[in-house]
Amino acid sequence: MVDNDVKDLGLAAAGKLKIEWAEQSMPVLRQVRERFAKEQPLKGIKLGACLHVTTETAVLMLTLKAGGAQLALCASNPLSTQDDTAAALVKEYEIPVFAVKGEDNARYYRHLESVLAVRPQVTMDDGADLISQLHGEGQRGGDLVADVIGGTEETTTGVMRLRAMQNEGVLAFPVIAVNDADTKHLFDNRYGTGQSTIDGILRATNILLAGRTVVVAGYGMCGRGVATRARGMGAQVIVTEIEPMRALEAAMDGYRVMPMREAAGEGDVFVTVTGNTSVIRKEHFGRMKDGAILCNSGHFNVEIDLDALAGLATARRPVRPFVEEFVVEGGRRLYVLGEGRLINLASAEGHPASVMDMSFANQALAAEFMVKKGRTLERKVYVVPREIDLEIARLKLASMDIRIDELTSQQESYLTSWRHGT
Amino acid sequence: MVDNDVKDLGLAAAGKLKIEWAEQSMPVLRQVRERFAKEQPLKGIKLGACLHVTTETAVLMLTLKAGGAQLALCASNPLSTQDDTAAALVKEYEIPVFAVKGEDNARYYRHLESVLAVRPQVTMDDGADLISQLHGEGQRGGDLVADVIGGTEETTTGVMRLRAMQNEGVLAFPVIAVNDADTKHLFDNRYGTGQSTIDGILRATNILLAGRTVVVAGYGMCGRGVATRARGMGAQVIVTEIEPMRALEAAMDGYRVMPMREAAGEGDVFVTVTGNTSVIRKEHFGRMKDGAILCNSGHFNVEIDLDALAGLATARRPVRPFVEEFVVEGGRRLYVLGEGRLINLASAEGHPASVMDMSFANQALAAEFMVKKGRTLERKVYVVPREIDLEIARLKLASMDIRIDELTSQQESYLTSWRHGT
Amino acid sequence: MVDNDVKDLGLAAAGKLKIEWAEQSMPVLRQVRERFAKEQPLKGIKLGACLHVTTETAVLMLTLKAGGAQLALCASNPLSTQDDTAAALVKEYEIPVFAVKGEDNARYYRHLESVLAVRPQVTMDDGADLISQLHGEGQRGGDLVADVIGGTEETTTGVMRLRAMQNEGVLAFPVIAVNDADTKHLFDNRYGTGQSTIDGILRATNILLAGRTVVVAGYGMCGRGVATRARGMGAQVIVTEIEPMRALEAAMDGYRVMPMREAAGEGDVFVTVTGNTSVIRKEHFGRMKDGAILCNSGHFNVEIDLDALAGLATARRPVRPFVEEFVVEGGRRLYVLGEGRLINLASAEGHPASVMDMSFANQALAAEFMVKKGRTLERKVYVVPREIDLEIARLKLASMDIRIDELTSQQESYLTSWRHGT
Amino acid sequence: MVDNDVKDLGLAAAGKLKIEWAEQSMPVLRQVRERFAKEQPLKGIKLGACLHVTTETAVLMLTLKAGGAQLALCASNPLSTQDDTAAALVKEYEIPVFAVKGEDNARYYRHLESVLAVRPQVTMDDGADLISQLHGEGQRGGDLVADVIGGTEETTTGVMRLRAMQNEGVLAFPVIAVNDADTKHLFDNRYGTGQSTIDGILRATNILLAGRTVVVAGYGMCGRGVATRARGMGAQVIVTEIEPMRALEAAMDGYRVMPMREAAGEGDVFVTVTGNTSVIRKEHFGRMKDGAILCNSGHFNVEIDLDALAGLATARRPVRPFVEEFVVEGGRRLYVLGEGRLINLASAEGHPASVMDMSFANQALAAEFMVKKGRTLERKVYVVPREIDLEIARLKLASMDIRIDELTSQQESYLTSWRHGT
Repeated sequence: MVDNDVKDLGLAAAGKLKIEWAEQSMPVLRQVRERFAKEQPLKGIKLGACLHVTTETAVLMLTLKAGGAQLALCASNPLSTQDDTAAALVKEYEIPVFAVKGEDNARYYRHLESVLAVRPQVTMDDGADLISQLHGEGQRGGDLVADVIGGTEETTTGVMRLRAMQNEGVLAFPVIAVNDADTKHLFDNRYGTGQSTIDGILRATNILLAGRTVVVAGYGMCGRGVATRARGMGAQVIVTEIEPMRALEAAMDGYRVMPMREAAGEGDVFVTVTGNTSVIRKEHFGRMKDGAILCNSGHFNVEIDLDALAGLATARRPVRPFVEEFVVEGGRRLYVLGEGRLINLASAEGHPASVMDMSFANQALAAEFMVKKGRTLERKVYVVPREIDLEIARLKLASMDIRIDELTSQQESYLTSWRHGT
Repeated sequence: MVDNDVKDLGLAAAGKLKIEWAEQSMPVLRQVRERFAKEQPLKGIKLGACLHVTTETAVLMLTLKAGGAQLALCASNPLSTQDDTAAALVKEYEIPVFAVKGEDNARYYRHLESVLAVRPQVTMDDGADLISQLHGEGQRGGDLVADVIGGTEETTTGVMRLRAMQNEGVLAFPVIAVNDADTKHLFDNRYGTGQSTIDGILRATNILLAGRTVVVAGYGMCGRGVATRARGMGAQVIVTEIEPMRALEAAMDGYRVMPMREAAGEGDVFVTVTGNTSVIRKEHFGRMKDGAILCNSGHFNVEIDLDALAGLATARRPVRPFVEEFVVEGGRRLYVLGEGRLINLASAEGHPASVMDMSFANQALAAEFMVKKGRTLERKVYVVPREIDLEIARLKLASMDIRIDELTSQQESYLTSWRHGT
Repeated sequence: MVDNDVKDLGLAAAGKLKIEWAEQSMPVLRQVRERFAKEQPLKGIKLGACLHVTTETAVLMLTLKAGGAQLALCASNPLSTQDDTAAALVKEYEIPVFAVKGEDNARYYRHLESVLAVRPQVTMDDGADLISQLHGEGQRGGDLVADVIGGTEETTTGVMRLRAMQNEGVLAFPVIAVNDADTKHLFDNRYGTGQSTIDGILRATNILLAGRTVVVAGYGMCGRGVATRARGMGAQVIVTEIEPMRALEAAMDGYRVMPMREAAGEGDVFVTVTGNTSVIRKEHFGRMKDGAILCNSGHFNVEIDLDALAGLATARRPVRPFVEEFVVEGGRRLYVLGEGRLINLASAEGHPASVMDMSFANQALAAEFMVKKGRTLERKVYVVPREIDLEIARLKLASMDIRIDELTSQQESYLTSWRHGT
Repeated sequence: MVDNDVKDLGLAAAGKLKIEWAEQSMPVLRQVRERFAKEQPLKGIKLGACLHVTTETAVLMLTLKAGGAQLALCASNPLSTQDDTAAALVKEYEIPVFAVKGEDNARYYRHLESVLAVRPQVTMDDGADLISQLHGEGQRGGDLVADVIGGTEETTTGVMRLRAMQNEGVLAFPVIAVNDADTKHLFDNRYGTGQSTIDGILRATNILLAGRTVVVAGYGMCGRGVATRARGMGAQVIVTEIEPMRALEAAMDGYRVMPMREAAGEGDVFVTVTGNTSVIRKEHFGRMKDGAILCNSGHFNVEIDLDALAGLATARRPVRPFVEEFVVEGGRRLYVLGEGRLINLASAEGHPASVMDMSFANQALAAEFMVKKGRTLERKVYVVPREIDLEIARLKLASMDIRIDELTSQQESYLTSWRHGT
């Protein structure tokens, strides 16, 4: 058995079935896998991945392995691991995995160290925790950096951290911002986060959304996905923002826009998707209605200030799986879902496979690109090459059996000329 | 311990927490319970209930018990029971329950007989199985009918059956069609079924709905709820109907409308909500795409002709909880969710509490009405008295903290006069 | 030239083209016309109509004339006449018309008298002004009633007046409530009023709806049409209601619901569609924002209390066609569209032809029914016979090239049996 | 009287009222005007503008004039001029205007020459016709270029032409792509074009959109605006595209996506918004349904190949203002709206003022920027400086009375640090 720390290897058979189910909705990644199996572009490359250990991630792992990579995988969030998937990866597919749903922070970081122990040449991150460890935040960081050709990063939050590293001049190798590929952030962040956040809230609470007021903090791609779907389920939606341009878009999209201080008293359900910290905090808890439900779909569990809430609470108790009740001033009960961690992974299954198909095709192709070209790149954050991005879009359309128009030669010529006027 | 047949009494504590959670979203029923506790309108009445054994039903049971009723409860569907809720009702609240999730048909009918054994004076049905047994379909029916003052019925399907009984002249006592109350079918059927069907599909499959084509069979209240929510999640929606008026409404609501024979080849997901039989059948399976997903949100598991599908299949196997794969001609794989039983109860938790709040307030008040007035009624299907319906609407609005306008005296007079013209 | 009072017969050619345009979108009425031309069911019948004089009404008139009727037509609203259509009816089709856009109330009532002067045997109303005149409100009413076989009525408002007459015992002949046909009120009131009200507001004001708050007073079929379309154009929508059931539906549909007193301070645009009087009144004007726009889509111009507004105003002036500015306390400017008359007819062209197709097919068939059966009916308000309603739905679907499912014999038998249970 | 060629100066009073109406919805531009009046940043600058001569453009002209500019204005489309607005600009505000609605191409180009005759130092274009003339396409171009400091361009189409000029190396002075400002293209193109295109179609045709199939060619910002609003009015929407990424987004947004060849047979209404030529052409006309309606909201009237349609037609005639009927093979009737010119300006009033407020604030500030900095810029296409863009967003929000959150210092620090991990 390969090295691992998972919950229960007995779950492997169930996990395998689920991985196969996900794979059916990942036709683009399947095509990449077929080519990888032939061409072996990652042959002999040690690749350390820190990702949500879900069935979709499993399909990515199988793709990378088919390409010749030696893998080690840990979780990118203490609460997002699917234990049956982790077991299947270890037992059925012989991929080292270090991830247990509900692990504490110490174990979470031990798992990161287990991945670093393979001395990865390529890193694959979801939130930049692995790269952050490598850059001296972890115990063994320093000496490992030299081995690394480059990395990839999946999320908006991780890309923000990497750009901060680049700006500080400390980034030690090139990283591809997979998040910034159009086939990633326009789809995964919007349609994936949108649906799966609603899914997470419903599984945790079974509340009716119709007629309720949902406050969405942040109107980036994720936030607009959540807002669209909440409205699609019959909720009234309020958006909070810090950027005027996005706030204006939200208003024109028909949402009410206001500061969180005001929204606090109006919301029945709050969802944070900002990438920032303490978006809901002490001053807001005090204004909330009895029964208000709070959750987060941003990468880190810092968007709701849970310490402040705990400080205000006169009592707290779990009332359903992934639902904790905090009793505050005046006997008001506030409910926090999934410990403030990303609710779509805590109480649901994360993004559906068909959208991760594109995100992870980007990951696989970005890893290949990094192996081929990484040594020629600077220590910066790079975008996914446009031709990769477009090719993924084309493959995805084809897999959905959608055909589109092509430019006629007359049209091509028209588009490059400026002489046709009124 | 009261008489019971449940899965595991050890689940009672978890069930109790969940019942309390549901109760928080049922303010109207809570008010009814408070009055019932004082007035004891059901004192000494034996009430037999055949309902989905969910947390919301539990709150109804507690209400009826508070009103003085002696209860016995069985499931109205073999797959809809929440085993923890059943356990809690028995152990924590001393209510006899006969229901186990996944029971076979024989056990299902034994459970009906267990409820009939208490010789109910009031029946409470969800699909009319209990009443049907009482009317000679069951072993002990005949001699029990004489004791019954009257019954209530929750669903469109059950009301159709009862009207058929009335038309045949066999209905042996009056029944109130709770389903036909506005505060029931305009809300529970539309917003409840709409959301919970989507919820059931997502929990069973974790597929992305955006970009997929969802075929909704039936455009009654339930069907339009499902169609609205499927669109709200980004799906294209096709509606099939047999009634021209509803078909026209669906078209004007922006949906594509076509016969199932055509829709069969277009759909990625099929949802039946017609109350009819064999809505999807042999001729349709043959035209479906590889990977098509089939489920039902109608009351009975007859809407998808599963026998025909089994006959066509060269192989079948479970691939995820509540997902069974059938391989048919050409290697196409069709997936049936929850054995064709109502998917919102099979793989999710049924209608959210806040909408069942109104449905079950109608049930409780209909039971009270039947005890008071049943002996004066004919052997017919009755609607819920309008004043009950409006009172529930008023209480619900108040609980949502919504105030509305009141007619001025000038307006009242205007509305009753015909003399004001242009 | 037939008897007439229209604005300018020189507009007849333009009107004729527009009538032909409308006719293309009225396939159901065209079929009725073809049959009428053969069967002459209205042969020799004098029919007095008081309807909005639009192109769609013109197609109805041609249908009735083809059926053998002798016609006279006047306007059912002083501001809804299309002068070119009126001219064409007179000059091109030899139908007597008495209607001028913008006529004052005296001339409006003179026109009613001109229609009554033909001593109609069948009346056709839109708002019940003609019938009201006949019942003694007008100068010549009394002696004419005896000739009348029966009438038809197009609107919710008119039906309310007729029911009031029936309740008072004064209704002198039977009337068919065309409004209550499903193919009328489910479509015309919802989709017709919805779109054409938005159209009217845009033509009058050219404002951007996205990001604005639209207050819809009344959540009947018309109100929900307006609310749906306003949201569809990107507006936030607030609904006001007096009925708790409708208010609850509006809330579940995701709208904010509140009393007009609160909504007054939030709205950018107000639309009344209640059928009631003084829905927006003195107490509301005082709370409105500078720049608020007020309009009405209900039948009569009483929903906004314009006298009260005029009383409050320190200045008033027209600022665009169909837009009048009232300056009130604090220099706030309130804008009233189309003199508070139904905005979809005042500044736009009323309901589109394809929805009037069904409404007016009901009118034509109701007139035929009245001629055949009217003498056997009581002095009451009748609904359109269900078979007529369904036939119109079928013809409409066919004209849209939409086919639907038909019940199999197995399904028919299933629906009438109560013995199939779980 | 200033130099002019307008339709009828007698329309000036009506035009003035309408300009004042538009101005009320342009608070951002009003603030710019106030500052311009004080600071005179355009003092003595000759500015030639080729824009749609609408009320909103008039408010921009008044702003530029207040800033000290000497103006000359011609139309950027033969069919988009509001004759009353043109008259008012000349007579009430003494601004030279050369524009008549419905002018032929020869007169259109004479008007461009009239503007060039003032020897502009700054050009302001909507479609790049003025700049194109200046670059040798017109009679007098050559000798005038030397005077020009720089230009601005309003549209996607114009920016495409300018980039083509830059790529060919012929662009003779710097131009600011106002279109590319977020406060322009995210709002004007999407919400403005969306609503006003629907408005244009309804005014031209008065058809019911509910239940009809609308084909939108192009899923850029304008196309998605049109698609959203068409759906919002109850239509089914089909999208055609040439770019896979956009096609995929359209599919995920729930629209059907297919080549125009297929869509041709499905559509009831076609709207082109691509910026390309012959998007609907001979091969498509042949497949269209009897009664299909075709219109364009792209800048030039080349998107529908009208020559090809005329060649196919056995007859053609106008049937309503802005609606021309072409009878083709099999007697099918196709209807072209507004001669294939942008329908929102041909039959409606163009973008509403509140969205042009931002677009034209960009224009005014871009002109100021060009006067200040133009001489230091290269002969390239520039974007609007980000600070201008954000400031406009902030002013717009404030004018809508919307407040938003501000970053706390803790949050600012969090966003720039990479050290906070899980």
